[in-house]
Amino acid sequence: MTQNTAVFGLGSMGLGMALSCLRAGQRGTGFELNAAQVAKLTDAGGVTGAIDAVAPSLDAVVIVVLNAAQVESVLFGDSGVAAHLAKGTGVIACATVPPAFAQDMERRCAGHGLLYLDAPISGGAKKAAEGKLSIMASGAPAAFTAAEPVLTATAETVFRLGDQAGPGSAMKAVNQLLAGVHIAAMAEAMTFGMAQGIAPATFVDVITQCAGTSWMLENRAPHVVAGDYTPHSQINIWPKDLGIVLETARAAGFDAPIAETALQQYRRAVEMGLGAEDDAALAKVYAAQAGLTLPGTAT
Amino acid sequence: MTQNTAVFGLGSMGLGMALSCLRAGQRGTGFELNAAQVAKLTDAGGVTGAIDAVAPSLDAVVIVVLNAAQVESVLFGDSGVAAHLAKGTGVIACATVPPAFAQDMERRCAGHGLLYLDAPISGGAKKAAEGKLSIMASGAPAAFTAAEPVLTATAETVFRLGDQAGPGSAMKAVNQLLAGVHIAAMAEAMTFGMAQGIAPATFVDVITQCAGTSWMLENRAPHVVAGDYTPHSQINIWPKDLGIVLETARAAGFDAPIAETALQQYRRAVEMGLGAEDDAALAKVYAAQAGLTLPGTAT
Repeated sequence: MTQNTAVFGLGSMGLGMALSCLRAGQRGTGFELNAAQVAKLTDAGGVTGAIDAVAPSLDAVVIVVLNAAQVESVLFGDSGVAAHLAKGTGVIACATVPPAFAQDMERRCAGHGLLYLDAPISGGAKKAAEGKLSIMASGAPAAFTAAEPVLTATAETVFRLGDQAGPGSAMKAVNQLLAGVHIAAMAEAMTFGMAQGIAPATFVDVITQCAGTSWMLENRAPHVVAGDYTPHSQINIWPKDLGIVLETARAAGFDAPIAETALQQYRRAVEMGLGAEDDAALAKVYAAQAGLTLPGTAT
Repeated sequence: MTQNTAVFGLGSMGLGMALSCLRAGQRGTGFELNAAQVAKLTDAGGVTGAIDAVAPSLDAVVIVVLNAAQVESVLFGDSGVAAHLAKGTGVIACATVPPAFAQDMERRCAGHGLLYLDAPISGGAKKAAEGKLSIMASGAPAAFTAAEPVLTATAETVFRLGDQAGPGSAMKAVNQLLAGVHIAAMAEAMTFGMAQGIAPATFVDVITQCAGTSWMLENRAPHVVAGDYTPHSQINIWPKDLGIVLETARAAGFDAPIAETALQQYRRAVEMGLGAEDDAALAKVYAAQAGLTLPGTAT
């Protein structure tokens, strides 16, 4: 029998996951407000439809939306899908959300007989398109079983982090703390170098071969060198994701001063109107403070 | 003619460089207060002696001491070597120092006819022992020529960053900003994960495969997992090196809030008596604040 998977949210990550499910021979249904994104799915053999009509025949639902409020709306909003799904349907929740929220969703899904997998994703749009994401997953063994065809189709690596919702989102928050801080540190160090006369391209050449390098530096610093802020990942992601980190930290009585400082820099970027630019544009906050001219920027 | 090189400071980095010079067929002389370290050089065929007697026949001097004050003392102190060196001798200065200090040393060396190379090193004790350091070098072409046999014997990669002293030390400061912040971010993220129930070993397994990884995380996080704080690189390095970063930044009117926050965490570690431990012990600052028990720590 053909696995019947629906993806809610066809942004670059969700579309890539939906297309990966189609490639794996699954029937793929997409739900998304942006018609152009829906067309990319239907052009590839996917379908869309009315939620209440489609839901009863689904084997799994994948939720790849922006934040916790949207996850709750997809499941339990006015036209929420949870009420229409058959018992035993897998719910694979991929948005970055607070661990406590994931636990709440698991509990409410269980009330409908649904198998919730706390399954944040990492890897970016390219890995999503290739079906090679990393998934930080936790949930009941039955939820992993229900999610198996989707995990196989979309992920290169599935980290199995626990038998209930929470640890998946906690690990994602840990990763986002590091990723957000490393982008900010890249921006700070590159512009600090510029203030001493070190060209951004020289910074990249040298530091990527030294102990100061990071995955994010190697991925994002070239954007600043090229003066290209096409948003592969927006500045706007970080006030949200570092906000989740600090909210989770506060709830645990944990001080995270470096994440807090990085968050302040991202907030400054948003205040400067840079929210929709690539997150490498954080360098512009430093350049503005120190009176530096970044590559590709008019003087 | 045999190249005649003297190394001042036979700590783990300087000794490794001196032994690399010996392996390359050079006559290697070491100057160091710690007799046990001197013995490691003489056991391998090196020599030591009186500075004023040895100095006139040297081709190159390598200075691998802790800080700017020690560099100045080696060159221009009461028994400083500068006054005894032949004109045209190469002076390869490897300590992490402020760029402005390097420029001052270059000027004062030029007054003695000496060829100063601003040449901070990166790579750790293992790479030093193997003759495979990265050297961030800047100086006059004649200084590079005078330093060539030493650079060839000790380095895998020599970055040639400019025709005068300053850019070498500036790039080292940029690298240290990143390295210091990344160690602190590793400590913050690992303990933040522990506060959510994520074991340190799981943190390492997952994050090293995700976008949150860094060179420093991969190098230092295993020390915390093992509960082994044998000082490969001490906490004490960081108040000094991040101090140089912030001093240099202030002089340029540059704000470096993330480096500043990391520096505060290292200062807390020193206040807790952790200065001589491996810098991965910064995790203890976070563990103490949040009431967490690190691996290998008695409860």
